[in-house]
Amino acid sequence: MQDTPKNQTPQENTSTQGTPIGSLGEFGLINRIANTARLKNESSLKGIGDDAAVLNMGEQCTVVSTDLLMEGIHFDLMYTPLKHLGYKSVAVNISDIIAMNAQPTQVTVSLAISSRFPLEAIDEFYAGVRAACDNYQVDLIGGDTSSSIKGFFISVTALGVAKEEDIAYRHNAKVGDHICVTGDLGAAYLGLQLLEREKKIYLESPGVQPNLEGHDYLVGRQLRPEPRQDIQRLLKTLKVKPNAMIDISDGLASELLHICESAQVGCRIYDENIPLNQKTLEMAQTFGIDPLTCALSGGEDYELLFTVDNKYIEELETLHGISIIGRITEMSEGRKIYNKSGSSHDLIAQGWKHLSA
Amino acid sequence: MQDTPKNQTPQENTSTQGTPIGSLGEFGLINRIANTARLKNESSLKGIGDDAAVLNMGEQCTVVSTDLLMEGIHFDLMYTPLKHLGYKSVAVNISDIIAMNAQPTQVTVSLAISSRFPLEAIDEFYAGVRAACDNYQVDLIGGDTSSSIKGFFISVTALGVAKEEDIAYRHNAKVGDHICVTGDLGAAYLGLQLLEREKKIYLESPGVQPNLEGHDYLVGRQLRPEPRQDIQRLLKTLKVKPNAMIDISDGLASELLHICESAQVGCRIYDENIPLNQKTLEMAQTFGIDPLTCALSGGEDYELLFTVDNKYIEELETLHGISIIGRITEMSEGRKIYNKSGSSHDLIAQGWKHLSA
Repeated sequence: MQDTPKNQTPQENTSTQGTPIGSLGEFGLINRIANTARLKNESSLKGIGDDAAVLNMGEQCTVVSTDLLMEGIHFDLMYTPLKHLGYKSVAVNISDIIAMNAQPTQVTVSLAISSRFPLEAIDEFYAGVRAACDNYQVDLIGGDTSSSIKGFFISVTALGVAKEEDIAYRHNAKVGDHICVTGDLGAAYLGLQLLEREKKIYLESPGVQPNLEGHDYLVGRQLRPEPRQDIQRLLKTLKVKPNAMIDISDGLASELLHICESAQVGCRIYDENIPLNQKTLEMAQTFGIDPLTCALSGGEDYELLFTVDNKYIEELETLHGISIIGRITEMSEGRKIYNKSGSSHDLIAQGWKHLSA
Repeated sequence: MQDTPKNQTPQENTSTQGTPIGSLGEFGLINRIANTARLKNESSLKGIGDDAAVLNMGEQCTVVSTDLLMEGIHFDLMYTPLKHLGYKSVAVNISDIIAMNAQPTQVTVSLAISSRFPLEAIDEFYAGVRAACDNYQVDLIGGDTSSSIKGFFISVTALGVAKEEDIAYRHNAKVGDHICVTGDLGAAYLGLQLLEREKKIYLESPGVQPNLEGHDYLVGRQLRPEPRQDIQRLLKTLKVKPNAMIDISDGLASELLHICESAQVGCRIYDENIPLNQKTLEMAQTFGIDPLTCALSGGEDYELLFTVDNKYIEELETLHGISIIGRITEMSEGRKIYNKSGSSHDLIAQGWKHLSA
């Protein structure tokens, strides 16, 4: 995986040069992808090259997740390198599998592209797909390729395995559980604001070089999220079983409300416990946004939000990278966020799209 | 499922009336879909409503297939009712699972749509999805919904189960195997030509009513293909195990060459044995196309092409709905099609897109 680009001139990842995709044909393109997709999991009996892939999941449960990513809605090719896009497309689906407390094992990646993209663009995209598959030891087992009239569309389906008793369903949250989040929140949203700002400047004055110097952390959080398999493994090693778990793709508030709604419970969280990176605090100030709003309603952090029984609290309190932000309560107590002074208000799922509007 | 439309005025399945999708929000839309998706398979532990669906495939193999369908490339909303589109999107993926000789069990359906479509359009589409799921006893277990800048995009992933020894891989074709096809070929392509002709007439003279009277068969083959689960079951009942199997989505020639390429074998087929419907013969004459070309290179018939050992030949010869069209040969003998007079030429995978160009 290449480093997060610094001072890169924003430009579309297309070119009038390069190999036209039509010269390969669909089957040529499939072979090109299949040839670089080595199978790593014993459960992958057959990958690309038949009507369907064949997996042998043995005694365990199969977990399936799917996502659609649309150019102009989910990503902007003006500042998203295709390799990062390929990486992120796979990573966000792996994140869903991990959020079930399952082991990701396979992905299918489907792509529709217009003829404005040369073959080299597809290669870049799949280099990112491959990098994510390698990092998470996941097999690329299939997909579909198509032309599109306009734009770049991606559909990814991820599969994983888990013992039934290990699966962390949202509805499993129990009254009295501690609410935990991994890493820090809000950074991916500010990374997006930065990229959007530089894009706007560039479009208004094409001579001006974008200035992303010193913003690696925020931009990296937006362009190259990493599913928290490390934390999932750590919890397993410590024999800490999360009751409910979800990955934070739409902002903390929205995800916590999903858990509460599924489990028919309430919650109480404390704003001072919500983890924020120093860079997030600084950039929120620059943009004049409340950093807490970025954490609650900014999306795409891909951290884990989970609930655990009180018996695990001592193990968890000593761990780096996990913050205990509140408790699950009875439904009748509502879903509340408290500030330092002890006053509270209702949690609202704004979603990051409303935030940016 | 509604009947294939007759004399329907072609118009886009959109409306300025109806409920705007934005009024529901993404989660409202997901709930609406989830509420009508009843789980039918014991293996579906959890469907829509968590980070991922959870399946328990027990002792058997999991089979996975995925397809992308793009407006303007794979379908034309001018003459494709959305309910048929929903049905076909699921059906073509189920067809891939059946072509592995597996039992289809679950599907995920993802949809991206522009704001020109009202909520009622989505309901129509999912009514078709549900009809296909009901017909094939398959569970809708997940998916993703997104807005699109322009157009209607569908991504479907189907899962199935099979015992490992039952799976009919393409590479399993053996020299000496008989080559069989189900049903008849070329009709779906001619159905498409008919729909395209009526669209053209309508666009040139909007007052003229399209005339599809008497063409139910051909139009139905295009708009509402049915995967041949009946034949799969029949073969199972007769204890006839196909060695290699594939569904015919791109035309007989292309699919047979896929099998030959995977198994590194040759083939010899006889044009007089290729099954053609009387309606196909008549319409091919109307359009001035060779009906055999429609069968070899016209797509979307979704019939099964399979190879079987000689020991099964007596059972197969007596069956309705299965045609024995040739034999698998040594690689060195090439891939040939013979006509009545005994002369032959090489099979070529033209694909239906070239045919229509």
